[in-house]
Amino acid sequence: MDYAVIMAGGSGTRLWPLSRQHRPKQALKLIGQRTMFQHAVDRILPLFPPERILVVTRNEHATLLMEQVPELPAENFILEPEGRGTAPAIGLAAIHLQRRDPSASMVVLTADHYITEAEEFRHALTAALHVAKAGQLVTLGIKPTTPSTGFGYIHHGANLGTIEGFPVFRVERFIEKPNLDTATAMMNSSEYSWNSGMFIWRVNRICEEFERQMPQFYAQLAEVATTLGTPLYEATISRIWPKVTKQTIDYGVMEGAEDVAVIPVDMGWTDVGSWGSLLTLLPADDDGNILIGSHVGIDTHNTLVVGDKRLIATIGVQGLVIVDTDDAVLVCPKEREQAVREMVDKLKQGGFNQWL
Amino acid sequence: MDYAVIMAGGSGTRLWPLSRQHRPKQALKLIGQRTMFQHAVDRILPLFPPERILVVTRNEHATLLMEQVPELPAENFILEPEGRGTAPAIGLAAIHLQRRDPSASMVVLTADHYITEAEEFRHALTAALHVAKAGQLVTLGIKPTTPSTGFGYIHHGANLGTIEGFPVFRVERFIEKPNLDTATAMMNSSEYSWNSGMFIWRVNRICEEFERQMPQFYAQLAEVATTLGTPLYEATISRIWPKVTKQTIDYGVMEGAEDVAVIPVDMGWTDVGSWGSLLTLLPADDDGNILIGSHVGIDTHNTLVVGDKRLIATIGVQGLVIVDTDDAVLVCPKEREQAVREMVDKLKQGGFNQWL
Repeated sequence: MDYAVIMAGGSGTRLWPLSRQHRPKQALKLIGQRTMFQHAVDRILPLFPPERILVVTRNEHATLLMEQVPELPAENFILEPEGRGTAPAIGLAAIHLQRRDPSASMVVLTADHYITEAEEFRHALTAALHVAKAGQLVTLGIKPTTPSTGFGYIHHGANLGTIEGFPVFRVERFIEKPNLDTATAMMNSSEYSWNSGMFIWRVNRICEEFERQMPQFYAQLAEVATTLGTPLYEATISRIWPKVTKQTIDYGVMEGAEDVAVIPVDMGWTDVGSWGSLLTLLPADDDGNILIGSHVGIDTHNTLVVGDKRLIATIGVQGLVIVDTDDAVLVCPKEREQAVREMVDKLKQGGFNQWL
Repeated sequence: MDYAVIMAGGSGTRLWPLSRQHRPKQALKLIGQRTMFQHAVDRILPLFPPERILVVTRNEHATLLMEQVPELPAENFILEPEGRGTAPAIGLAAIHLQRRDPSASMVVLTADHYITEAEEFRHALTAALHVAKAGQLVTLGIKPTTPSTGFGYIHHGANLGTIEGFPVFRVERFIEKPNLDTATAMMNSSEYSWNSGMFIWRVNRICEEFERQMPQFYAQLAEVATTLGTPLYEATISRIWPKVTKQTIDYGVMEGAEDVAVIPVDMGWTDVGSWGSLLTLLPADDDGNILIGSHVGIDTHNTLVVGDKRLIATIGVQGLVIVDTDDAVLVCPKEREQAVREMVDKLKQGGFNQWL
């Protein structure tokens, strides 16, 4: 059977002060009236019944996410004692699925993305599942629309054919976050996609790759797997998980994997990672402003205001991001939005735990 | 006897969102742990006992101010049903004083000023009272330290002598808020002072001027005066005051008065009218920032942060004023601080009464 696994384990530090340790990004209503996690589930419900949608998240966020999508069975929430990166999260989901159905295929998604063309997205997943069942590790590629230096890129290799209207390419090479010149060149070529972080594969294929490329982690995973469905499970994962090396699926598996295919999809995809990404997603008014909450402005342009209960008043500002929450206010020019992560680090170092 | 009259009737719109209709500027702790009104009283207590300090304020602010300085007798608070400008406020205080003591002298002060050299200020008042008793209308002049276009200026005329070490000049002319060139020329000359808005005169002298120069107002004032100390007083002032023409003491009286003298004083005077004035008053840190409340900054320079309960986090900002209160946040570059008044007007026009 086909399953979807939504990775919802991050906290989204670059969306501080709205995202917090107790209120992760995926639980926020950043776009419209649904949270990022609800959007992620909504998108795939036409393709997967709730009992075949699994969620990997951290213990402390489980209740919050369960409440947001009560139609998902509680046992479908796979809890990590702590986040160890995408490779361990995917590995953990894989052993859970393998126990349910050794021949399962899995679609790995995240709650970080916003997709305007959800139907095209579902078509692409359906095509990708066909390719995955033949043994390929499939990744969805996104046609670059800007010379972003914040994404990884995929260089398309040989065309493997067309499935349900989607061209399928062998992955020639994964390219780490490039500099601007390289990014511009790749954007202007048709041979490159952004690495979306969405993967489709058979469970047994990804487990083979873990065994071959991350043998130490695979052994740890195997130990956890022996306790699945037993009273020992919780104690075992709690003991082993802190010892698991942090690793991303890209570095840990994809870059060295065999039989990797990419399906480029044009589906209005945005990685909602930082305040700047909202600026590209939400409609601006005539002054270029995106105003959420109560705002009164004089000479205010190209500014993102995310309000809460208070009035935000701006005079003569240009290109600012202003985010107001119950207990913290952020003021930051758009072009410095990546430094929000630095701000969170600074708060950590300063021991300002109440604002983390 | 000598009396002090503190005019505390304004609301201070340029200090929004900290100053509000229900929380006027004079009731705010802008500098240190005392409110502007408390500072105003503290400064003159060595010179006037509490029973000879009167306060003119608006009905709705009376309780707040009384609580702040409980040593002032309640009957010394002279209440205006609504503000009609400085001339009517002073006229009202004058008839109250005249009833107590027809030969009284009065020192007219405001709660808008901060004075670092309070002792020099009191010396100047003492000298000015001597001059006032001889029949002069005396104003304290401030040596201009910047070519401010926001103040009125006074052109010194003939030197009338020196009293207690202070030179006294006839006022040659009052000059309205000048342009920058004129302001610069006046700053560089020793013949000009800023008009501080602090006056010293005999009550009967100022009443003569009201009678001569503002006869309509004087008649209104006389009608109120006949009811002083009677049960009719409140009804009478409530009926008459809304009909009083708004007028400043400068336009209404001083510019056309006879026997006007100025005593220039160097006493570390600041008109605390806007957020910018706090920037000149409060000590900045090494980055030029003035930070009140909780703040964490990255690359933040020359910025005024007035916090309340929340954390204010700034990244890459320069020359901003950020003021956070319970229900509103203001973000505004320093050089636009005068537009805060415009913001308050805009809120009024928009019917956003909760934030006024």
